[in-house]
Amino acid sequence: MTMIGNLTRRTVVSWQKKALGQRIPLTTMTQNTLKDDHGCQILMSPSLVSLDLPDVWPPNSTDFRFRLAKTQSNEHIAAVINGQLIAEEIRSRIASEVRRMEEFIGKVPGLAVIVVGQRRDSQTYVRNKIIACEEVGIMSKVTKLPDDCTEDEILTALSGFNVDPSVHGILVQLPLPRHLDVGRISDVLSLEKDVDGFHPLNIGNLAMRGREPLFIPCTPKGCIELLIRSGIEIMGKKAVVIGRSNIVGLPASLLLQRHHATVSAVHVFTKNPEHITHDADIVIAAAGVPNLVRGNWLKPGAVVVDVGTNPIEDPSCEHGYRLIGDVCYDEAVRVASAITPVPGGVGPMTIAMLLSNTLDAAKRAYNFT
Amino acid sequence: MTMIGNLTRRTVVSWQKKALGQRIPLTTMTQNTLKDDHGCQILMSPSLVSLDLPDVWPPNSTDFRFRLAKTQSNEHIAAVINGQLIAEEIRSRIASEVRRMEEFIGKVPGLAVIVVGQRRDSQTYVRNKIIACEEVGIMSKVTKLPDDCTEDEILTALSGFNVDPSVHGILVQLPLPRHLDVGRISDVLSLEKDVDGFHPLNIGNLAMRGREPLFIPCTPKGCIELLIRSGIEIMGKKAVVIGRSNIVGLPASLLLQRHHATVSAVHVFTKNPEHITHDADIVIAAAGVPNLVRGNWLKPGAVVVDVGTNPIEDPSCEHGYRLIGDVCYDEAVRVASAITPVPGGVGPMTIAMLLSNTLDAAKRAYNFT
Repeated sequence: MTMIGNLTRRTVVSWQKKALGQRIPLTTMTQNTLKDDHGCQILMSPSLVSLDLPDVWPPNSTDFRFRLAKTQSNEHIAAVINGQLIAEEIRSRIASEVRRMEEFIGKVPGLAVIVVGQRRDSQTYVRNKIIACEEVGIMSKVTKLPDDCTEDEILTALSGFNVDPSVHGILVQLPLPRHLDVGRISDVLSLEKDVDGFHPLNIGNLAMRGREPLFIPCTPKGCIELLIRSGIEIMGKKAVVIGRSNIVGLPASLLLQRHHATVSAVHVFTKNPEHITHDADIVIAAAGVPNLVRGNWLKPGAVVVDVGTNPIEDPSCEHGYRLIGDVCYDEAVRVASAITPVPGGVGPMTIAMLLSNTLDAAKRAYNFT
Repeated sequence: MTMIGNLTRRTVVSWQKKALGQRIPLTTMTQNTLKDDHGCQILMSPSLVSLDLPDVWPPNSTDFRFRLAKTQSNEHIAAVINGQLIAEEIRSRIASEVRRMEEFIGKVPGLAVIVVGQRRDSQTYVRNKIIACEEVGIMSKVTKLPDDCTEDEILTALSGFNVDPSVHGILVQLPLPRHLDVGRISDVLSLEKDVDGFHPLNIGNLAMRGREPLFIPCTPKGCIELLIRSGIEIMGKKAVVIGRSNIVGLPASLLLQRHHATVSAVHVFTKNPEHITHDADIVIAAAGVPNLVRGNWLKPGAVVVDVGTNPIEDPSCEHGYRLIGDVCYDEAVRVASAITPVPGGVGPMTIAMLLSNTLDAAKRAYNFT
């Protein structure tokens, strides 16, 4: 297996171009990387992606033939996109930036987390986020509320963080207990601190040409970063996003479109989703269904990003369960050109993007570049 | 030709089902029509479309075969969806509602229009909107500003209308001269009066599950209304939107997705767009390119909604030009099962939806149901 993530980027790019059967120069977009004053590059994806290339259509042509799908030997094994390694590299660059910030202005970024109830997965996610903050020097605060807390209690905690100048990012760990209105809660969250990027104004700005969101939601941003770091061209490619949740599927579709992919959004009411995915150069699977995407759903040479983290029982594992993705990995790895594993793919990137968004928020708050 | 629009709905539905090769019961969604207290139904499309059907995926199957596209004789001629007739019916129902409002509470809806410069098309659009308002009893106000007006002059006019209680809807006629920032101007427009639905918060709420926009942008709303009134099932269908403008393409994609279509957004960077449209049950063309969509771009039996209004020179016409759509009508009519003409398709619906949004805004302002 070719491992992506250890910066053998040139090889991967040329290999990827071959896999997609095309020789297209990398756009300026993927080269338009974010560099700070010290030349320390944290993300490869641009912080603000513009939709504002002119939409000048070429004259139409009467020449019309179906392109036959390229066949490829099944002996092929996909390159594994190592999200763990890429996330570590990003975290280490964030740590340098936080140190530089502290050195120059005596401040560090701060993240506040509100967690409601005792869900084991939520507790684990929050713990991991706090540890990740500590590792890069981001200050963190956690407010824990009981399962039966009122909406007002959350709103009070949220309002406190909204006005706390040491807090630059706030997140409310989802899912919340059913009696709480997520919409009302995110409406109260200060837009400048919405590091999850779930506010509808932020989503609207992500969707619209000529507008820029303050934050790009972490998981989709992590998916795009994995693609770009793996030298995978997005512009002009056919992308399918499976799932249309507010936190992954929807913003992933909008973000891919900002990168000028042709995006199809597949959801539970899609008939024969495998026909649509089979035509895609890039598949982002975020349905929350274990092994939904089979090998025969994929076009040979497709790039597969698996957002699923579905626990399945496995007595041989330490906690009695293990995580599997939305993609049937063993089958997909024989068809795709590149694939993210579960665990170790998108998961670590989500936290890295949260740290990156928090750093951006603090830089914006202090006008520090 | 079978004309749709004269309420021979039952026939059209059964014909449409046959054309799409499926026998699917109409969903509750298309039957969930908006009725006022008098049983006078203005729109067939629900005013608030929910994305909140549970996304429960069926267990995946290993059975995987491509469905062959159905072939259909080219002798077939598509039904023409008569937007003029449908819009007239809607306008007449809006007029009754306005009369009822005046009778019960002594108020009528009010629309304010700001138009900048002397563009002939803008002047014509605004004049048509004002005439349409008069016809249904909606009060209208127009502020005309010169081509070289400042952003502040527009913002002053806008702020005046924002606080004017007799104005329930405000629109700024687009396009604006290049020196003006459309984004900044729509940010100032009161959300409750944004009858065009172009505010990013409104677009975000249109995109997200569990949220509802105050207004659906007029042209996409008109497209959906045409489909529903023509008995065309949207849920579960493959839809392609060509073009991704903030005012048509983007909201049309989001709205189709709210109706549970599987949406692919085709734009200028899409390679071989004809391969994607050829797989679609519903095509909404909003690229602004005359005759972009050829007959061979379409699947036999597809439904085609043509948003294009492109002026082309024609000395035989009164003004020396005529309007043609984005779809090569003469070819498409032999392949599609139903098609909107240009003119007389989407165009009249846009104004009808503007009146409908203004009526809704006034009802909301006066809490009148």
